[in-house]
Amino acid sequence: MLNDRVYNFAAGPSTMPESALKTAAAEMLNFRGSGMSVMEISHRSALFQDVFDSACEKLRTLMRVPESHAILLLQGGATTQFAAIPMNLMEGGAADYAITGNFSAKAAEEAGKYGTAHISANTKPGGHDKIPAQEELSLSEDAKYFYYCANNTVYGTEWQYVPETASPLVCDMSSDILSREVDVSKFGLIYAGAQKNMAPAGLTVVILDKALAGRELPCTPKILSYKTMIETGSMLNTPPCWCIYMLDLTLDWVMREGGVRAMDERRHERAALLYDYLDNSRLFKPHALPGSRSFMNVTFRTGSDALDAAFIRGAAEHGLVNLKGHKITGGMRASIYNAMPVEGVKALVAYMKEFERENA
Amino acid sequence: MLNDRVYNFAAGPSTMPESALKTAAAEMLNFRGSGMSVMEISHRSALFQDVFDSACEKLRTLMRVPESHAILLLQGGATTQFAAIPMNLMEGGAADYAITGNFSAKAAEEAGKYGTAHISANTKPGGHDKIPAQEELSLSEDAKYFYYCANNTVYGTEWQYVPETASPLVCDMSSDILSREVDVSKFGLIYAGAQKNMAPAGLTVVILDKALAGRELPCTPKILSYKTMIETGSMLNTPPCWCIYMLDLTLDWVMREGGVRAMDERRHERAALLYDYLDNSRLFKPHALPGSRSFMNVTFRTGSDALDAAFIRGAAEHGLVNLKGHKITGGMRASIYNAMPVEGVKALVAYMKEFERENA
Repeated sequence: MLNDRVYNFAAGPSTMPESALKTAAAEMLNFRGSGMSVMEISHRSALFQDVFDSACEKLRTLMRVPESHAILLLQGGATTQFAAIPMNLMEGGAADYAITGNFSAKAAEEAGKYGTAHISANTKPGGHDKIPAQEELSLSEDAKYFYYCANNTVYGTEWQYVPETASPLVCDMSSDILSREVDVSKFGLIYAGAQKNMAPAGLTVVILDKALAGRELPCTPKILSYKTMIETGSMLNTPPCWCIYMLDLTLDWVMREGGVRAMDERRHERAALLYDYLDNSRLFKPHALPGSRSFMNVTFRTGSDALDAAFIRGAAEHGLVNLKGHKITGGMRASIYNAMPVEGVKALVAYMKEFERENA
Repeated sequence: MLNDRVYNFAAGPSTMPESALKTAAAEMLNFRGSGMSVMEISHRSALFQDVFDSACEKLRTLMRVPESHAILLLQGGATTQFAAIPMNLMEGGAADYAITGNFSAKAAEEAGKYGTAHISANTKPGGHDKIPAQEELSLSEDAKYFYYCANNTVYGTEWQYVPETASPLVCDMSSDILSREVDVSKFGLIYAGAQKNMAPAGLTVVILDKALAGRELPCTPKILSYKTMIETGSMLNTPPCWCIYMLDLTLDWVMREGGVRAMDERRHERAALLYDYLDNSRLFKPHALPGSRSFMNVTFRTGSDALDAAFIRGAAEHGLVNLKGHKITGGMRASIYNAMPVEGVKALVAYMKEFERENA
């Protein structure tokens, strides 16, 4: 951490590996001796195709993506996938949706435009403080797929198991992709907005069982057709080249650090520091229930809005920034994605202890 | 131009102002004293909102966008607008499309999914070497809008007049926005992929008469609804923050250089250098007819594929890169957008003369 850098606990866009930022700065005016920025070169050039292929190959290696699955690098964010998924996979029929937070609710609402979104579970009555158990999921017989959001950034809950369903699994992994080992072969479709664990905002990674492509509704915009994007190598039009470049640099960092296994170990280390302290604090209370707690977004509060505000302000003065919770929930949220050093979490816990001593 | 930089004639992504690149590199690890990169800060933060608002205000000032029109900063490129425009404006009815090149043809094809795309003109029989005159446009009575592409990058033609139509004008200005003065009040909708005159790929600017919003078909994805995007200030979800930041830096440069008027003067200067030489060359032949010629993309060839290839290779050895024409047309194409210095065009013409002497 440079002297003038802070520990940034923002939920997304969020902290990135410093090595990626430094390389991007150094190469800004002359990428690999081309005399151009990576932003200035044609997406059809061999130079850029090399960046694109490199990012895809690293993702395939790191996540052990089987050959049955295509990797697409797209624009539009998760909100675009909320529509693209039912347009491509629902065939005007039905699909199961587990609602465990803000974004899965939005996904289900959008799917209702294109077919029947059957609600398999809804944790809203408990304030989305837990993940439903397998036996609590209501699965419909005619579902074209089962949809869930692996990690709920707003509420700080995370699925600690992969559901077993007869229909293909479709999973929004925007906020925990690459933080844990996942058996991709179990999924029909995985997607993730890049701006938490992978790259700057403006890029969406879709990993798709190729057997599911080609079923889109006639009204599907060509740009949202998975089949078209597979056929064009994600380049029906100009892709978000800079974001793909930053993805490649970030994946370089993940590989150097020891791959997904190392990320998995670190997420345990970071989360344990925070939850262990929270479970013993007399001032701060965690929101999510044990067994459903997120390793990526730790939500907590004091119970007093005034104290919460004082804590957030004081933390910022100590270089611990963006700890304010989502406007839906209030309170605090520490987002601790892959690029957050363990030292950042230690510094946060140290300040929490200091604040508790002064305000208990 | 730095010693190790080249003159980059790529059609898009394309050359950017060096001042913007230098600022981006300098601020990479610590944006405005925040201790974070602009890629790491929340899109909901005051710091980022300031960048966003600044870019929109500069666009409004530079293009004199009236208050009747909203400025949206979106993802997805022109290809996404090919669908979004008919989904939002066609109401399942009809619209007029003038086909003057590759991208207007694609737009008309996509529109056919959502209603009737009436072809008002089609210059394909002549190899898209000209723009139709006003009196050649076949306008239908029930058209919800008239669609055209102001500048055709592949063929090197450009509309030198604004069509007069009863229905609202919808214009793809991807490759000539900010290069000439335009009366925005005449248009229902202007849009532009950013990667030629504005910012890196991954950002699309839409300038829309607000009175046209709110007519979308029921199957329109929420992310493609202009009404929703106006209501959410282009932030239904996380916008492409880096691209918006680079847009702001590029608009800084446009303003410092003298605004759109200065860009307009320079486009004349650059294009005149090339076309004057081409019209007098005994080796190189321009593709587009006088009166329809693009100020942004100058297309030409020698008539011999082998000589074309030798020219492109030799130019690259002189630091004049990406002069190969689009794969549809072959030949050469010099893209000379706002950020291309006049000196770059002079260097190109000097090399063309040298090549002609050696090969005539």
